[in-house]
Amino acid sequence: MEALRRRILQDGRYLGRGIIKVDCFINHQVDAPLMVEAGRELARRFAPAGPTKVLTAESSGIAPALCTGLAMGLPVVYARKRRPVTMPQAVFRRTAPSHTKGVEVELLVSPEVLGPGDRVLIVDDFLASAQTILALAGLVQDAGATLVGVGVVIEKGFEGGRAALAALGVPVEALAIIERVEGDQIVMTP
Amino acid sequence: MEALRRRILQDGRYLGRGIIKVDCFINHQVDAPLMVEAGRELARRFAPAGPTKVLTAESSGIAPALCTGLAMGLPVVYARKRRPVTMPQAVFRRTAPSHTKGVEVELLVSPEVLGPGDRVLIVDDFLASAQTILALAGLVQDAGATLVGVGVVIEKGFEGGRAALAALGVPVEALAIIERVEGDQIVMTP
Repeated sequence: MEALRRRILQDGRYLGRGIIKVDCFINHQVDAPLMVEAGRELARRFAPAGPTKVLTAESSGIAPALCTGLAMGLPVVYARKRRPVTMPQAVFRRTAPSHTKGVEVELLVSPEVLGPGDRVLIVDDFLASAQTILALAGLVQDAGATLVGVGVVIEKGFEGGRAALAALGVPVEALAIIERVEGDQIVMTP
Repeated sequence: MEALRRRILQDGRYLGRGIIKVDCFINHQVDAPLMVEAGRELARRFAPAGPTKVLTAESSGIAPALCTGLAMGLPVVYARKRRPVTMPQAVFRRTAPSHTKGVEVELLVSPEVLGPGDRVLIVDDFLASAQTILALAGLVQDAGATLVGVGVVIEKGFEGGRAALAALGVPVEALAIIERVEGDQIVMTP
């Protein structure tokens, strides 16, 4: 996705230790029109997989997942990191380490919104080491639902996430791939 | 908004202690087409106010804020509850009690995404006691930005939030108002 690729090169910043700062247009401030375009492109790529639901993790996954759900006319579920009082006691629960917060986080989904009938497309803002996405795939498995694909806005190609997802046996799509970082320069796959 | 009103009466549930459960279509699973419609309606109501940015709090505010931003072609900022490593040390910071989690939460916004030039529309899923919205309004003030309105998807009319917002001196709009609860029955303003 060329507009996204250009925006990352223009406004993305490398902070060291593998951290790419894109919080002026992806995950603190969201460039709404750009995100709509990203959702449309993920929808186009995953239409053949026939998903019935989009799944993501709060909070930074919500914008790309919602835009994908909008483009496909599908409900969007975001796994919660803390149990609100509105959630039943018995939930699907997995854990994953947070890259940018340095803690282990729980991901919780209510059985009221994910079950055996669902064909699930996982969408997130980043694919890095894939720990969050593997936890989401675990929730899909716990619910007896079927995973049909994984779509992300930005892949950090140098963190091995794609290889870690191979065992899932589903298509994995990234709209922009950061190949490596040279000094503080972001190098993207053309 | 009639579709929303009907959906709340059909799928909303009262859990006691003022808590309304709408997590199958608003704030865990999101009914994407319904949320788009909500965003369009908030956009229509606030067009005269001329906002340049939409502000909300993660996580459950993101979906309605994003849909409003989409309808208006505006960037959307969501205040974070924990500081990611991508956020600068010096941030705007307010606190608010969380209704559904029983804890005090911080709301953080980077000065990189909110400043004196911004005309801000605050959007959230719920208006209850208004503590979260008042904290967001505090962040707008801290940034030297101008608050132009407050829009919510659902107002709990029995918790006094609207009166608490009066001092802000801006229009407040709710797409559906829950007037009271009788037993476990939700009663909505027609």
